Amino acid sequence: MAAQKTKVTIFDVAKASGVSSSAVSYALNGKPGVSEATRAKVLQVARELGWKPNGAAQSLAQSKTRRIGLILGYDPQLLAVEPYMMSLISGLGAELEEKDYSLLVRMSMDSDDEDSIIEDWIATSNVDAMLLLNLEIGDPRIEMMKENPQMPVLAVADASLTAGLPTLASDDAAAVGLAVRHLYDLGHRSIARVAGPEELGHSYIRDAAFSEVTAELGVRYRCLHTDYTPAAGADATKRLLSVNPSPTAIIYDNDVMALAGEGIAAMNGVRVPEDLSIMSWDDSFMCEAAHPGITALNRDIVESGRIAASLMLKLIDGEEVGVVEEPPYVLRVRESTGPAPQR
Amino acid sequence: MAAQKTKVTIFDVAKASGVSSSAVSYALNGKPGVSEATRAKVLQVARELGWKPNGAAQSLAQSKTRRIGLILGYDPQLLAVEPYMMSLISGLGAELEEKDYSLLVRMSMDSDDEDSIIEDWIATSNVDAMLLLNLEIGDPRIEMMKENPQMPVLAVADASLTAGLPTLASDDAAAVGLAVRHLYDLGHRSIARVAGPEELGHSYIRDAAFSEVTAELGVRYRCLHTDYTPAAGADATKRLLSVNPSPTAIIYDNDVMALAGEGIAAMNGVRVPEDLSIMSWDDSFMCEAAHPGITALNRDIVESGRIAASLMLKLIDGEEVGVVEEPPYVLRVRESTGPAPQR
Repeated sequence: MAAQKTKVTIFDVAKASGVSSSAVSYALNGKPGVSEATRAKVLQVARELGWKPNGAAQSLAQSKTRRIGLILGYDPQLLAVEPYMMSLISGLGAELEEKDYSLLVRMSMDSDDEDSIIEDWIATSNVDAMLLLNLEIGDPRIEMMKENPQMPVLAVADASLTAGLPTLASDDAAAVGLAVRHLYDLGHRSIARVAGPEELGHSYIRDAAFSEVTAELGVRYRCLHTDYTPAAGADATKRLLSVNPSPTAIIYDNDVMALAGEGIAAMNGVRVPEDLSIMSWDDSFMCEAAHPGITALNRDIVESGRIAASLMLKLIDGEEVGVVEEPPYVLRVRESTGPAPQR
Repeated sequence: MAAQKTKVTIFDVAKASGVSSSAVSYALNGKPGVSEATRAKVLQVARELGWKPNGAAQSLAQSKTRRIGLILGYDPQLLAVEPYMMSLISGLGAELEEKDYSLLVRMSMDSDDEDSIIEDWIATSNVDAMLLLNLEIGDPRIEMMKENPQMPVLAVADASLTAGLPTLASDDAAAVGLAVRHLYDLGHRSIARVAGPEELGHSYIRDAAFSEVTAELGVRYRCLHTDYTPAAGADATKRLLSVNPSPTAIIYDNDVMALAGEGIAAMNGVRVPEDLSIMSWDDSFMCEAAHPGITALNRDIVESGRIAASLMLKLIDGEEVGVVEEPPYVLRVRESTGPAPQR
């Protein structure tokens, strides 16, 4: 299974020197715990074999940390259920690995925690670049980063929120158009949305776009903001189904709320899509495996993570990045959306 | 929303000194880019306000990195769909945060990559401790860690696989008993299992336990090994449903395969649980939200992550850890398991 080894490792040096790998490690790192004779021998063998210090050791020489900072600003239980972040980390990690970079991950429970971590990173140069996620309107982190241009930063957000910082931008407003028009074309004239937290920048962008598009088309629209959890998605669905007349379609701001909403519909004898159409913002395997399969706005988040990583590496190299667009959303039509019920 | 700030930050120092925060950062870190007069003033103000260097700066003084190493040895697309790893990271991150520690994440595509990363970390002391996941039988990483006792390591695995390394152990054999007896009590006498990769240590532990328990109870048992992906879970389900007589119950080694299997059953007109009972190893929101809800072996993976982090911090402090048991599995009975069909 293992691929052919090409790099000379400390284990190869250990074998050729006839000493343990820990002795080699001590010797090469100039640490105590090994005799001077052994150290001299190990260094000679290492030179002969062509052993090279790895990325981490090289980074010391270049005063680069070879680390990218990522702050997870979420409740840990929610992080665990929402595939978005793991997809992004997967893409980031895969791309960074090719450049021998690591991801330095911190978890913050509130925005003050997060500010402290950013300040730490800026003050100590503990990472070579940072990723900014989940920007709020007028987010104070923007100003903090602008005052500290020595720390490269990439924001993943709508470009209208990032005040000129290097940005990997998604066109959420265009995606709103895709979603609403899909339902409109199926005859829906009363649409509800179960949204994420109101203070998040992308919730705001989506709010504004939904209001605009539905007003333009003459579609009745209402919106409930939640904390993104399955429980909140279920609760919002119950509330929407209890009003009279209830909406004929619900769009959820993430996949776990959509799946929870579909469950509530089934438990209440509301047929999907005959009585109620359901859509998810952000597609995932859950949407595909659900019964019925959930129509979703799909984007390749793993690929976005790869792009974000490569942009951060460019920033570290001093290149200009500006605003780069993510691959666009694509509508994946499945069984959960159908013609509006006649009432 | 932000909590009351108690820590004096470089931004407070900047305000009180009347200079920019980046000037403060340069001054406090002894970097060029600021006059000596400004540097002196900033240092004085920082002292007066009681500014303290953060964890990262302190770690330099203590020659600790305040980083824990985690290698994700997975296909990035699979990582994104399986909630296990994100749950573990969430728990690790939450616990480490309280101690001002970071998680240093690398992604490896094959076992040779992973060995190189471990060698790097050992050679350069780039992390204070490491986590070992997904051990294989006779895993070479065990030997590597034993030869390098200067690097604290915690294995998350069945204790029989870890050869005396500090271990956070799960009792997978006990869980197999729970699962098989649940089905046995419902009258099932022909059970199949859709398992993870054969070379993984925990697959082996489960394989052995399943063979033993089913033999003891006189239950017919067959097992298909897969790569854990939803596609492989779907494919294995098709194969199991096409044999005659097909098993009356299928246990899947992860939740995404169970959800995929339930989908295949529905598409083939096989009713769950009337014609086929379905169970998942590892519970998640998917199992709860699926229709019908999927009976699952539940464990609190976020909590396991927290425990793993606290054990690694103990190891870094030089404490003994030995083998610590994870919180035990609990059987969550939902609608996907029912009495065996009469044939």
